[in-house]
Amino acid sequence: MTVTQLKQRSLLGLKELEREEIESILDRAQYWENHPSKVNAIAPGKFVANMFFENSTRTRFSFEVAEKRLGTEVLNFSAAVSSVQKGESIYDTVRTLESMGIDAGVIRLKPIGVLAELATKIKVPLINAGDGNNEHPTQALLDLYTMRKQFGDLKGLTVAIIGDILHSRVARSNLWALTKFGAKVVFCAPENMQSAELGGTYVSMEEALKADVIMMLRVQLERHESGMIKSAEEYREHYGLTVERASKISSHSIIMHPAPINRNVEIDDELVEHPQSRIFTQMQNGVPVRMAVIERALN
Amino acid sequence: MTVTQLKQRSLLGLKELEREEIESILDRAQYWENHPSKVNAIAPGKFVANMFFENSTRTRFSFEVAEKRLGTEVLNFSAAVSSVQKGESIYDTVRTLESMGIDAGVIRLKPIGVLAELATKIKVPLINAGDGNNEHPTQALLDLYTMRKQFGDLKGLTVAIIGDILHSRVARSNLWALTKFGAKVVFCAPENMQSAELGGTYVSMEEALKADVIMMLRVQLERHESGMIKSAEEYREHYGLTVERASKISSHSIIMHPAPINRNVEIDDELVEHPQSRIFTQMQNGVPVRMAVIERALN
Amino acid sequence: MTVTQLKQRSLLGLKELEREEIESILDRAQYWENHPSKVNAIAPGKFVANMFFENSTRTRFSFEVAEKRLGTEVLNFSAAVSSVQKGESIYDTVRTLESMGIDAGVIRLKPIGVLAELATKIKVPLINAGDGNNEHPTQALLDLYTMRKQFGDLKGLTVAIIGDILHSRVARSNLWALTKFGAKVVFCAPENMQSAELGGTYVSMEEALKADVIMMLRVQLERHESGMIKSAEEYREHYGLTVERASKISSHSIIMHPAPINRNVEIDDELVEHPQSRIFTQMQNGVPVRMAVIERALN
Repeated sequence: MTVTQLKQRSLLGLKELEREEIESILDRAQYWENHPSKVNAIAPGKFVANMFFENSTRTRFSFEVAEKRLGTEVLNFSAAVSSVQKGESIYDTVRTLESMGIDAGVIRLKPIGVLAELATKIKVPLINAGDGNNEHPTQALLDLYTMRKQFGDLKGLTVAIIGDILHSRVARSNLWALTKFGAKVVFCAPENMQSAELGGTYVSMEEALKADVIMMLRVQLERHESGMIKSAEEYREHYGLTVERASKISSHSIIMHPAPINRNVEIDDELVEHPQSRIFTQMQNGVPVRMAVIERALN
Repeated sequence: MTVTQLKQRSLLGLKELEREEIESILDRAQYWENHPSKVNAIAPGKFVANMFFENSTRTRFSFEVAEKRLGTEVLNFSAAVSSVQKGESIYDTVRTLESMGIDAGVIRLKPIGVLAELATKIKVPLINAGDGNNEHPTQALLDLYTMRKQFGDLKGLTVAIIGDILHSRVARSNLWALTKFGAKVVFCAPENMQSAELGGTYVSMEEALKADVIMMLRVQLERHESGMIKSAEEYREHYGLTVERASKISSHSIIMHPAPINRNVEIDDELVEHPQSRIFTQMQNGVPVRMAVIERALN
Repeated sequence: MTVTQLKQRSLLGLKELEREEIESILDRAQYWENHPSKVNAIAPGKFVANMFFENSTRTRFSFEVAEKRLGTEVLNFSAAVSSVQKGESIYDTVRTLESMGIDAGVIRLKPIGVLAELATKIKVPLINAGDGNNEHPTQALLDLYTMRKQFGDLKGLTVAIIGDILHSRVARSNLWALTKFGAKVVFCAPENMQSAELGGTYVSMEEALKADVIMMLRVQLERHESGMIKSAEEYREHYGLTVERASKISSHSIIMHPAPINRNVEIDDELVEHPQSRIFTQMQNGVPVRMAVIERALN
């Protein structure tokens, strides 16, 4: 197998991925959703390591369920309980697991640029489960999958992404992927949460609420202290999806959120399981999408 | 399947459970103890999530062994290494795992009343692994199982529960369950550890030692600081099962403890593995009892 | 089965193990390396508990992969997220897991002498995954395995172990095992890192570099504060395997390190994956070696 073929089994981001490749992942996810037998021994004896150098509940479990449904053996690594505390580098940990014979690695980490560098040194396929403020490709894939199921086609959709665009890997992966499919992405954010580097079109909250997909981002409340947001209340007032605002969205529109959610900050409590919300549907879709991604890595 | 049937597969507490239902769980536990093949593929492809929002070694492992012996896939969640740290609510975590397709959830949490509320919102069966100071039904079930194995019948037994009754979910679940079977429960506790709300009969230490079952409770040494206990030594002097006191119990009586144990506080070190102690037998019995409970949830 | 036979299935250290026994483990490891099918159901339904009362990434994963390749069920215990925090003793935890029916336990702990005591009280076979400053037998076994693969025979080899001998369980296990095979072990260490109790021959750095195997030990940088080392830079200058020093070693010699590595302290960054380095090969060899050790425990 050539290095290029190996790289094709990794999933580092959606920016560089062809539309056809994304489509084939989504199609395969649909296959897995349609085949609800809970465990499929398509990958018996394969080992997948979930290496989370940044805390996560949701994403790690989603991968773990996907892996186990494919019949792989799962190794879970969480930085908080490991020798990373002893100063071991991320590279050494990944390289160690590679030496032990894992067949693929799922990785989440904070420092920007480390994943791209890792991918040049590590031979087993790597799946990006969130790297810093760069990309979160499986989240965007499950978002696309959810929209495609809802609307049939992504082409011509308007997707409004609302919140801290500047620090959001979800916004970036979604922007790049949706654009490939002919969807229109607009952003809505306070000035200090806009990203000059990323580009894109910023609209008012009023305008954003006209979109087919209203995608709310999580506010990092820690940023309150740094002065980026004045208070949770004020953020909600200006950029939160309140019950009042939600009453104005089109009846065919859907509400999305990558979670975890700050209830009553970026989205009102009552809206999380609103009939037009697809928030828990997104989580449900995450499993077949990640099955497709891991299967691709192991092939 | 109706909501009522689903609820019947949950195990939230023993207070509301019929005697016949408890008996059928104990009988099924006996079946599992008699069938020692270590892994039984009766639940292949089923996923059970152990969601511990409060630390535990013993209980979590007991459930994990039970689940794996039934052949289920196991997901382990421990709040200390999760995004609960990021303010995510317990409900959102459980709902997330439900969205991912788990078939049953085992849950331990601190805040009182949250489990009952969860059970009205979550569709998959939930098994209470300890909620606050309310109930710990699988612990009481394994206690009953241990007593039944020892004495043949629970009817007519006297069970003395000694220690911090006020804060003990073990005492509550045992009281309610044992009473249904015609056993007599007596409590022994310092005044500030008695529970007016729970009711029950309080006796002296001397009287308590005459019981068929002497069940010692763990002292929360943290309560030393709050003034509830003066010192470990003084607690031991008045309410500890010392070697001297143990010498006075009847030769047919047994010593129990839900563990973990404070050796030389509520029970002397030498008594933990005394011939009349069933402490490690209780732990052994926990596995078949929990197999029966999980099997019931998955049916 | 007699107690003696049971003890023969434990692996507490290499000091007391016969050469023939070590050899048979290494031979069996070779078998596992030659049979690369990733999962072998030779131990279906067996439960192995990894009980780490001291943090570890590498060693725990190596055991976990080995266990899963043998087809066992795996329970992972890490003290940081357990009721050891509630003051539970190590003995009670191990005894609890034994009660739940585990078939073997892998254990790492800090306090010296506890493992030996445990082994007299616990009936299931125990495998030492590092106890304090005493022994780390599976590390030494994989070191021997790596040397044997490289040189064909251990007899007549010179192995230089460089670093903090005083606190190294790796040095101790290697010394005792290598000596049984007729290899010559020399140590190189600053005076305050030499061990009078262990004995052995100390040589200069220049002399050490003439060995067939240059085994570098991890420096505990925490010891900087205690005054044992002045600084990482100064340690590197006197006892580090620098690029310059490595240029002088024989072309047939190999570089080893038990990891985790302090890059540019005890070994220069460029040397970790040098053609003469076997550091990641050691990690790779750890899996079949531990498969052999666990298989032996379960037999």
